[in-house]
Amino acid sequence: MIERIAILGTGLLGTSAGLALRAAGFRGSITGWNRGAEGAQAALQMGAIDQIASDPIEAARASQVVLLAVPIYATLDFMEKLSGVLGSEHLVTDVGSTKRMISEAGTRLYNTPERAAFLPGHPMAGKERGGAVLGDADLFRGAVWLFTDDPAAQRSPHSAELVKGWREWVAAMGSKTLDLDPVRHDELVAWVSHLPQFVATALSALLEDEVGTAPELKDVGGRALREMTRLGASPFSMWRDIAYTNTEAVEAALFALEQRLAHLRENLRTPALRDEFEQANRFRRE
Amino acid sequence: MIERIAILGTGLLGTSAGLALRAAGFRGSITGWNRGAEGAQAALQMGAIDQIASDPIEAARASQVVLLAVPIYATLDFMEKLSGVLGSEHLVTDVGSTKRMISEAGTRLYNTPERAAFLPGHPMAGKERGGAVLGDADLFRGAVWLFTDDPAAQRSPHSAELVKGWREWVAAMGSKTLDLDPVRHDELVAWVSHLPQFVATALSALLEDEVGTAPELKDVGGRALREMTRLGASPFSMWRDIAYTNTEAVEAALFALEQRLAHLRENLRTPALRDEFEQANRFRRE
Repeated sequence: MIERIAILGTGLLGTSAGLALRAAGFRGSITGWNRGAEGAQAALQMGAIDQIASDPIEAARASQVVLLAVPIYATLDFMEKLSGVLGSEHLVTDVGSTKRMISEAGTRLYNTPERAAFLPGHPMAGKERGGAVLGDADLFRGAVWLFTDDPAAQRSPHSAELVKGWREWVAAMGSKTLDLDPVRHDELVAWVSHLPQFVATALSALLEDEVGTAPELKDVGGRALREMTRLGASPFSMWRDIAYTNTEAVEAALFALEQRLAHLRENLRTPALRDEFEQANRFRRE
Repeated sequence: MIERIAILGTGLLGTSAGLALRAAGFRGSITGWNRGAEGAQAALQMGAIDQIASDPIEAARASQVVLLAVPIYATLDFMEKLSGVLGSEHLVTDVGSTKRMISEAGTRLYNTPERAAFLPGHPMAGKERGGAVLGDADLFRGAVWLFTDDPAAQRSPHSAELVKGWREWVAAMGSKTLDLDPVRHDELVAWVSHLPQFVATALSALLEDEVGTAPELKDVGGRALREMTRLGASPFSMWRDIAYTNTEAVEAALFALEQRLAHLRENLRTPALRDEFEQANRFRRE
C-alpha cells in the first residue's frame, strides 16, 4: 500500500532507514533530499534512495509517506511548511530525539480528517558520529522505535491506513515499537539516553584536561575507559537541539547524578559505598 | 630461568595469568592457592595451575616467583608474612589496583641484597565480574601492565634476574609494560580507571531508582546505555580496597566531575555547551 516514500535528510538515520526499507523488501520509490549535496549523493550511491530531489516540498507532495530525518528544529520547520501543502492522502513521520514539542506541533498542524497525518517517532538507535556514509541497513535491528502518537488524532481512513502501514515497515526493519506519552517520553529519554551522553561528554572533556597531554596514558584505562568515553566523540550538532528542547528534564537528571556522585564521594570509606554498588548491581542483573 | 611460580589467589587475574603463561610457552610448575576451594579447583581444571597448595606460605617458599593476585589488603598481609620467610632467591610481585601503599610496603619489607625482591605490578585488564571461571589466556593481550618499581631497590643478582625474567613473561603474555612512580600511578588510575568505575556505579544506581521498576524501558537506552552502565555490575568486593587505599585521589576526581556536570547543566542553552562537546571530541580524536 505504501509505494512512495520521501526521506528528507539523508544523514545517518535517513540513509539507514532507506537501506533498512530496501533490506526489508520495500519495492516502491524512495526519493531523498539533503541540505548538503554530498550526503544526498552518498545515500544515492549506497542505494538508500533512488533519486535526489532538488525541492523537499515537491518531493513530499509527490510521496505518500514523508520521513523527516533532520535535527529537531529543522523537523519543526518542515512540519510548519508541509502542513499547508499536504492533505489527507499523506503521512508525515519523524525520527527526532525529543517528542514534546514535535508532538504538540503534530496535534496543532496535522491529524484532522482534511489534513495529513503526523506520527511522532523516535528510533533508539544511532552511532556516536553521523553522516550518510555510516548508514547501515541493520541500524534499527533489535532497537526500540518509540511512538508518541496523539490518541485524539482524527485522521482520514486513508491517512490512518498509512500510519498502520508505516508501523508495519518499522517492525519489518527489525525494530520493536513502543508507544509512550510525549511528556513521559522526554522524561524517560532524559534518564536513559541524554544523561548517559552528557555524562560521557563531561567525563571525556574532564579527562582531556587532566590526561589529554599524555596520549599514551589513555591506553592505560583499557576497555572500561574506551566504553565510558565512546559517546564523547558525539558532535555538538547532534545534541544541541536535544539540550534546547528537553532542558528541564536533562537538568533534573544531571542534578540528580551530581548529588549521587557527591554521596558516593562522601562515603568512600563507609558502608554506604556497599549499598551503592549493590543498587548498581541490581540495575545490571539479568 | 624462572621454573617455579606460585599464584596466590586464583580469581580472574590469577587464573588468567596462569593460562596466559602457559599460552606464552611457560613450561615450569605453577602452584596455585586460593582462599575458597572452589576457585582453586576451577583454576586446576582449566589448566591455569598444575597443583593446589594447602599452605600459601609453603607454596611461596617452594617457588621462585610469587604472584599475589588477591585484594589489596590481602596483598599487604601476604607481603608482611612472606618477607620474613623468603630470601634473595625469590621474587614477589602483585596485580593490585593501587600502588602507593603496596610500593611503600615493598620498600620497607623487601629489596635489600638479603631479602626477596618485590616488584609492584598492575595489569590494566579485567572484567566487570571476577572469578576463576572467567579466566582468559588473552586477558592481558594488548593491555598495559604497569610497574611502580623502587629505583633505589638493592637486590641480589639472583633476584634482580628474576625481576628481569618476570618482565619478559609479562611481555610474552601480550602486555605492554610501562613504569610509573607509585604516587603518580595512583593519581593517574583515579582518573582513567577509578573515576569511570564510580561514575558507572553512581549512574547505574540512580537509574535503578528512576527506571528500575520498568525493566522493559532499559531496552530503550540501547547500546549507549548498556555501555555506560556495564561496569555497574562490578561487585563491591572488587572495589572496596581501592576506595580505601586511593581515597584522596578518587575524591578529587569525583569532585572535579561533579563540577563539570554542574557546568554543563548550567549551560545547556549557552555556547559553553559547544565548548564542552568540542573538548570531549578532542579526547576521542584518533
